[in-house]
Amino acid sequence: MSRINVGIIGFGTVGAGTFEVITQNREIIMNRVGTEVAVKKIADLDIDSDRGVNVDPGLLTVDAMEVIDDPEIDVVVELIGGLDKAKEYMLKALERGKHVVTANKALLAEHGQEIYQMAERSGVILAFEASVGGGIPIIGALRGGLSANRIQNTMGILNGTSNYILTRMTREGLPYYQVVQEAVKLGFAEDPPNLDVDGTDAAHKLAILMSIIFGSPVSFGDIYRDGITALTPNDVRFAGEFGYSVKLLAIARNLGDHLEARVHPAMIPKNHILANVNEAYNAIYLEGDFVGPNLYYGLGAGRRPTGSAVVSDIMDISRQIRLGIRGVVPPLGHVRSPGKEIMVQPMDELTTAYYFRFSALDRPGVLSKIAGVLGEQGISISSVIQKGRETNRSVPIVMLTHEAREKNVQKAMTLMNDMEILTDKTVMIRVESG
Amino acid sequence: MSRINVGIIGFGTVGAGTFEVITQNREIIMNRVGTEVAVKKIADLDIDSDRGVNVDPGLLTVDAMEVIDDPEIDVVVELIGGLDKAKEYMLKALERGKHVVTANKALLAEHGQEIYQMAERSGVILAFEASVGGGIPIIGALRGGLSANRIQNTMGILNGTSNYILTRMTREGLPYYQVVQEAVKLGFAEDPPNLDVDGTDAAHKLAILMSIIFGSPVSFGDIYRDGITALTPNDVRFAGEFGYSVKLLAIARNLGDHLEARVHPAMIPKNHILANVNEAYNAIYLEGDFVGPNLYYGLGAGRRPTGSAVVSDIMDISRQIRLGIRGVVPPLGHVRSPGKEIMVQPMDELTTAYYFRFSALDRPGVLSKIAGVLGEQGISISSVIQKGRETNRSVPIVMLTHEAREKNVQKAMTLMNDMEILTDKTVMIRVESG
Repeated sequence: MSRINVGIIGFGTVGAGTFEVITQNREIIMNRVGTEVAVKKIADLDIDSDRGVNVDPGLLTVDAMEVIDDPEIDVVVELIGGLDKAKEYMLKALERGKHVVTANKALLAEHGQEIYQMAERSGVILAFEASVGGGIPIIGALRGGLSANRIQNTMGILNGTSNYILTRMTREGLPYYQVVQEAVKLGFAEDPPNLDVDGTDAAHKLAILMSIIFGSPVSFGDIYRDGITALTPNDVRFAGEFGYSVKLLAIARNLGDHLEARVHPAMIPKNHILANVNEAYNAIYLEGDFVGPNLYYGLGAGRRPTGSAVVSDIMDISRQIRLGIRGVVPPLGHVRSPGKEIMVQPMDELTTAYYFRFSALDRPGVLSKIAGVLGEQGISISSVIQKGRETNRSVPIVMLTHEAREKNVQKAMTLMNDMEILTDKTVMIRVESG
Repeated sequence: MSRINVGIIGFGTVGAGTFEVITQNREIIMNRVGTEVAVKKIADLDIDSDRGVNVDPGLLTVDAMEVIDDPEIDVVVELIGGLDKAKEYMLKALERGKHVVTANKALLAEHGQEIYQMAERSGVILAFEASVGGGIPIIGALRGGLSANRIQNTMGILNGTSNYILTRMTREGLPYYQVVQEAVKLGFAEDPPNLDVDGTDAAHKLAILMSIIFGSPVSFGDIYRDGITALTPNDVRFAGEFGYSVKLLAIARNLGDHLEARVHPAMIPKNHILANVNEAYNAIYLEGDFVGPNLYYGLGAGRRPTGSAVVSDIMDISRQIRLGIRGVVPPLGHVRSPGKEIMVQPMDELTTAYYFRFSALDRPGVLSKIAGVLGEQGISISSVIQKGRETNRSVPIVMLTHEAREKNVQKAMTLMNDMEILTDKTVMIRVESG
């Protein structure tokens, strides 16, 4: 095999980055793989726009099937994103015996099972390092260097847009909508940034991580998700006064007979290494039964980092093609599935600590009424900050609780929302001890 | 192949940890590898001490050759450390066609070439994830997920003992010798902790990282190294006032036609993610031309984390044995050596910023004399702190410089040490902008 031929479907940001890595680091790749890796075809509906890379127009086609049907192409890279078309192309490529590399987290999270099975049936390699954490080689770490461990706890900052917004809200005290507006204007966030800020994107990535950690696909719908749109600069500031940073965390915890799987804003102690992950950076914090705490940090999106991850997969496949082998490590890192179905605990059963901000009338006895409702639900308070009057005769009362049950917290919040001493909806943020 | 047999040479801390991982996570390993992995023999001169693991006495032997000569053993794990004996056993095992896993950084850094060549000649796998960063899978990342990149900058906190000492000096303002005494008493540091605190251990690890980054062994002697023994709580505190943390950093920088390779205490901005790596944790910060900044963080030593890394190597080898293949990725991650010899720049040529602490007589004109000497050497000052009188009529004058040449800095320090206005040796710490 004198040369590995790559076909790219989707010539957007990541497609252009992938092409750039292969072209610019051609010699490095050749030295490391032992053979040349080159792009033979690129399919995209738009083959006219300038992507800022110097590409031979003869490589371009508007027909994805030209890539999939080309007998000389060894590796098909799916980078169009989305569900339907991407799935169709991916399954066809796998069916025709092509190795497939993808960065498509939504597709793997929602239809992974079907795709993994097709790859297995066809005896080809399916690789997706770029689908989680952009350039961070976290999937490689889970399939490789951490594979001797039972991973007990995973906490990830998996969405760069949300982290960028939260960082600016924290540093500059700006409200959510203002940071989003600016981020969209500067091209840091999509317009509107729905899937980024509502927790869906992070949940997709968490589903993929969990599939590798536990050795079988997780049902995406079982992952609880909530986003950052309701956070206010006030809450971020109060969190800081209690010694915490607010992050959008994707959490998977192995509790033996069941799992926690959830994405939501969370407070984490400022001295935790995750609290120091700012701007558009992503990070995955893991605890393994032997390795202990580990952190992986880098840029979670963008043309160049994601291109780096896509090409590392192409190189892994190329090394195997060169040696005439395939699938040294299966997609989910498990040769035998552990067999047990993964039971995700209903959110109601969660036990954790909580932050509350009550907007209360500035009247004697208010705190005792609030504490009363919490007490009835078995929720005990660990600390309270009560500030001077703010607006409209109402004062913010903020508190942290000891560990409590989510079900009881939800009940308490429902009860409180009917209390006339509270002038606004109560804000709740879950607290991770780390 | 129904079972992969492992032989361990060296039943100390890491040997016991390795045994523990294989035994305790037997099922996880089997699911991920597809076959059973078991320890068949353990050699150690001391086979009587209790290691806190439940081991069948029939597995134990005092003769390492029993492990190496056992035809049923597939993988030999060398964990005795040190140079001569370890090298002898490793070469013999490789010669006899055994795959070898080791955590021996000193041996690989100082005699790597010979060992890599023997592994290649024998067509077996040599793996050493545990040799750098304990449980952190950094070698896997460099050989895998980062392999599409030219790594331009590496900064590592690679010695946990030094980092623990510096963390306590920073947090508690304690002097070096006092923290060391306590660390030795608590079992956190060896007695004496020479190789840990003088930069040698970190330099060994840096040499291994550089070998993989550049694709050929680095001459260990070319790595400049200096330790933390001369640091004082005063310097750590002044660094803090300037907005920096002091860390023992192992730095490799690719400047195109030559490299920087150095281990020494360095100041790094407090908001840099490396500055937040505390206690016995290790971390490796890398910048690749496409992936951008990346950080890998975890426990750099200890029975369980190091055992995790050793067993991940055993699992990688087992997967390959099971499929009848070997060496999908060569030890240094390169199928073809880049060919160019790695030229490490002499330390004199280094250009960086510097911190100085002068102990000066409390007299008018002193600062101007110091600034004069610096100016003559082309060193320009970026900020100065002058504190009130301290002891013996002398005052500390601390300053940061703009980028300057190491050669000139050394010259200036020599000149100053002869100046009678200075009452003590001048302290210098290099400053990394990150």
